[in-house]
Amino acid sequence: MKTSLRNDRFLRALRRQNVDRTPVWMMRQAGRYLPEYRASRAKAGDFMSLCRNPELCCEVTLQPLDRYALDTAILFSDILTIPDAMGLGLRFVEGEGPVFDRPVRSLDAIRSLAAPDPEVELRYVMDAVRTIRGALGDRMPLIGFSGSPWTLATYMVEGRGGHDFAVIKKLMIDEPAALDAMLETLVQSVTSYLTAQHAAGADALMVFDTWGGVLHPDAFVRFSLEPMRRIVEALGRSCPGVPVILFTKNGGAHLERMADTGCTALGVDWTTSLADARRRVGARVALQGNLDPVTLFARPDRIREETARVLADFGHGPGHVFNLGHGILPQTPPDHAAAMIEALHALSPAYHRPV
Amino acid sequence: MKTSLRNDRFLRALRRQNVDRTPVWMMRQAGRYLPEYRASRAKAGDFMSLCRNPELCCEVTLQPLDRYALDTAILFSDILTIPDAMGLGLRFVEGEGPVFDRPVRSLDAIRSLAAPDPEVELRYVMDAVRTIRGALGDRMPLIGFSGSPWTLATYMVEGRGGHDFAVIKKLMIDEPAALDAMLETLVQSVTSYLTAQHAAGADALMVFDTWGGVLHPDAFVRFSLEPMRRIVEALGRSCPGVPVILFTKNGGAHLERMADTGCTALGVDWTTSLADARRRVGARVALQGNLDPVTLFARPDRIREETARVLADFGHGPGHVFNLGHGILPQTPPDHAAAMIEALHALSPAYHRPV
Repeated sequence: MKTSLRNDRFLRALRRQNVDRTPVWMMRQAGRYLPEYRASRAKAGDFMSLCRNPELCCEVTLQPLDRYALDTAILFSDILTIPDAMGLGLRFVEGEGPVFDRPVRSLDAIRSLAAPDPEVELRYVMDAVRTIRGALGDRMPLIGFSGSPWTLATYMVEGRGGHDFAVIKKLMIDEPAALDAMLETLVQSVTSYLTAQHAAGADALMVFDTWGGVLHPDAFVRFSLEPMRRIVEALGRSCPGVPVILFTKNGGAHLERMADTGCTALGVDWTTSLADARRRVGARVALQGNLDPVTLFARPDRIREETARVLADFGHGPGHVFNLGHGILPQTPPDHAAAMIEALHALSPAYHRPV
Repeated sequence: MKTSLRNDRFLRALRRQNVDRTPVWMMRQAGRYLPEYRASRAKAGDFMSLCRNPELCCEVTLQPLDRYALDTAILFSDILTIPDAMGLGLRFVEGEGPVFDRPVRSLDAIRSLAAPDPEVELRYVMDAVRTIRGALGDRMPLIGFSGSPWTLATYMVEGRGGHDFAVIKKLMIDEPAALDAMLETLVQSVTSYLTAQHAAGADALMVFDTWGGVLHPDAFVRFSLEPMRRIVEALGRSCPGVPVILFTKNGGAHLERMADTGCTALGVDWTTSLADARRRVGARVALQGNLDPVTLFARPDRIREETARVLADFGHGPGHVFNLGHGILPQTPPDHAAAMIEALHALSPAYHRPV
């Protein structure tokens, strides 16, 4: 199926092959900024009911593709489905975000964690992937994704999105072997989850490491990077040739080491220059990013200038997937996202012509 | 007075001169984790009433020095005194932090901003510095401080601590010249404020750039770094020879450029290794940091190991001021801070002996 996609710009760019223009997608492109998403969400009820409904997941996944000239779909789901499937009880609290009813707070609780079976406890995700894959046909690729082991562990131990990350860091310092064991279970869980998403129809796989950037570099290497590296290695066996993208928010200091994992591409947020990132990782990986999502609150003429700046920052040649540096914000005017995409389509072909 | 201090380790370390052991202080060392602070705060009423009372400011400034073997005092105040003196109406809301009643939300409001006179609108701060200086005598140095222009502007425009920084970033992208003008007023304000703190008795001056790390590198240079550079330059004329410390939270990517400002030392948070920072800035500046404050929630034996790790990370020789990578957290057990300081005093002399 991959070789016969009508639009394969995204997969080609990930492999640093030539393209006619820079492919684009937006993190959280199916989301609250779109009125059609809000209507689907209202039909579903709460957020997790939407995630558990394959037909509605497919509906919202396709919405941004019908509105904008985007180059890939991404599964509509949440990064915390694995801990929910482990029995922690995921809820979304208005104005606060994700909360677990039963956070992991003891060594016994860590020992009792087991990797969920993707086709049993997470079957609703696989059904969503299959439904979306069927609806997309050969139109464009589909990205499957998961949270990184460190990011999942952070939510599982803190019980909610962190500020100081006091609970997980105390565990990390006082009981590092217990955290290693927890991360090992999560490496297995994420690997089988992503492998199953690929089997169900995902063409590329992305690991979101939302909280790797809050660690000391040595702690990042042990508790965030090394688990991701083992996932990349395992996916190389279970899904050979499938592109894997790693994205650590605020991880600009670690790009060289992240490229060393053998992944296909790195997400880069806006606090790192793409020119600097490209210089540092060389030809080993493609780069994905990195317009600050807040830019889409500015005037459309400024949005075009900032889009041009990101293109110029990466520069000429293959290996760039245009994206925001983080998820599109709920208050974003949809026509401002259109201004960015139109500017990209107008300006990016010049970066792919022979010099 | 500076040359006759009984304890001048901190000032010597800032100038990369030899010391017998690594000097130490803690950001927010006078704070809520101390029961004696909470008692003083209760006497004052709200937080700003404490800041406006020179006798109580002096009392809380000295409290950590009586409890721990620290090497410098730091003025007890807030980074937002300048915008408050500009008439924005600073309040502290429980569970939320600082809020301005009259945020800056128009170009007219920016044009009407005027630099406050430190001995008039901010006289309560200068009185606090004079009172503390008198009480300290020749015991140890005193640090004066301010927020950076970018950080002050962020609070002034957002009206409160940011999450997405959507308001200030929209101003930055849509009206960069207006933001430049606002920052120019803040450069003048911070320079005269710090100059007056030195005249009132501060031996070293520190600029806290809490939010510089949320910017794209180009935006950081223009809107955060360049204003700080001009303050360093102006202080070189108004207070020649006085050490100036710059600290950008999450600014590890910018250390070389920050050292180029001509400042004396850089604060480093725990997301950057001190060995890496030292390699990058060479002998141009001293480094201050960088134990993750959450470490003080761990067991005392682990706190000692982590303290040893920070010392080893910086390595042998002069130019290190031990500190946390951010302010000490309110829930910190006071005896855990003692464990860190005792470990430092036991371990650090070895790093200052001739090799």
